[in-house]
Amino acid sequence: MPVIEFWYDFASTYSYLSAMRVEDEARASHVELHWRPFLLGPIFQAQGWDTSPFNIYEAKGRYMWRDLERLALARGLPFTRAQPFPQNGLTAARLALIGAEEGWIGPFTRAVFAAQFGNGADISDRTVLAGCLAALDLDANALLAHAGDPTIKDRLRAQTEEATERGIFGAPSFLVARDHQLFWGDDRLEQALAWARKPA
Amino acid sequence: MPVIEFWYDFASTYSYLSAMRVEDEARASHVELHWRPFLLGPIFQAQGWDTSPFNIYEAKGRYMWRDLERLALARGLPFTRAQPFPQNGLTAARLALIGAEEGWIGPFTRAVFAAQFGNGADISDRTVLAGCLAALDLDANALLAHAGDPTIKDRLRAQTEEATERGIFGAPSFLVARDHQLFWGDDRLEQALAWARKPA
Repeated sequence: MPVIEFWYDFASTYSYLSAMRVEDEARASHVELHWRPFLLGPIFQAQGWDTSPFNIYEAKGRYMWRDLERLALARGLPFTRAQPFPQNGLTAARLALIGAEEGWIGPFTRAVFAAQFGNGADISDRTVLAGCLAALDLDANALLAHAGDPTIKDRLRAQTEEATERGIFGAPSFLVARDHQLFWGDDRLEQALAWARKPA
Repeated sequence: MPVIEFWYDFASTYSYLSAMRVEDEARASHVELHWRPFLLGPIFQAQGWDTSPFNIYEAKGRYMWRDLERLALARGLPFTRAQPFPQNGLTAARLALIGAEEGWIGPFTRAVFAAQFGNGADISDRTVLAGCLAALDLDANALLAHAGDPTIKDRLRAQTEEATERGIFGAPSFLVARDHQLFWGDDRLEQALAWARKPA
């Protein structure tokens, strides 16, 4: 079965759009999906940005929020201009890495994005994350403690370094590792899936 | 008939993709098309960039060239990584404004983009532009002289200022003026046309 990697950052608005549909789309295309959460922060910092480019470049930021509103409406997705922006998704990403190992990363990722951009919650708040975990019948306290383990921290750091090494500069990104084809942006998901299915 | 404005810069790779299809797509959607050439340079400068962000941010630039190659191939469009990048499209844009008045801006715009990204020509070269004009049975010498008139220079300056005022920060952009909806990027053309056709 062909494979697609979905690289996303929990603070990224366009990653929300992809996170809510990528599993269904991949299944419909008979493509195996690998969830790859990472942190855009260090990648932005290496480009000289101390916050999201949507905050630095005002016209681009205004456009992004309106674009998201239109796209979410067209897809029947709730959408709120969650504040602050960008949010600190560090703990969410660490939890997601545990979920990748234990098999609940998909529903957890959707729950966190829905809390943030659907309901306007702040995902740096551990009680918000605990709610997302509890809704999946997971042991929130144990997992939040586990997320602070050095091994988990190292894993997220390594995943973010891997993103940089593989040429990822924004989120969401879709990677077809077979022949290293990178696709950036929610609007490239269909093209990425088609590429993954192409005969080698 | 609903109207869509197509804002483009002659140095912009993604504007090439749109320029080659926008007239056909607008016609098929029964939407009237207004060609609006402008200069991204002053807008980039206001953001602190002295060249294209695709040159400043290396990973983003590498991605853009590959993305263009894939998209052009899928559409049956020739594509060359024309150098230098970005090219100086000042005279091309001034000529296009004359073409807007005289009714040949569409074919002229396509000819200039095809020369640059199809054939790898440098569009700051007046003989390249003369070739584009001559291919349309236009008087190249007279038009190139006319393009240097202060009225034409002012018109391009005003058009670029209008772009900034209307929130345009990149190219191509599509604007539905009726309710001021901006759509950025070749991949938003279909959405922009659908918006233009929506009942008010």
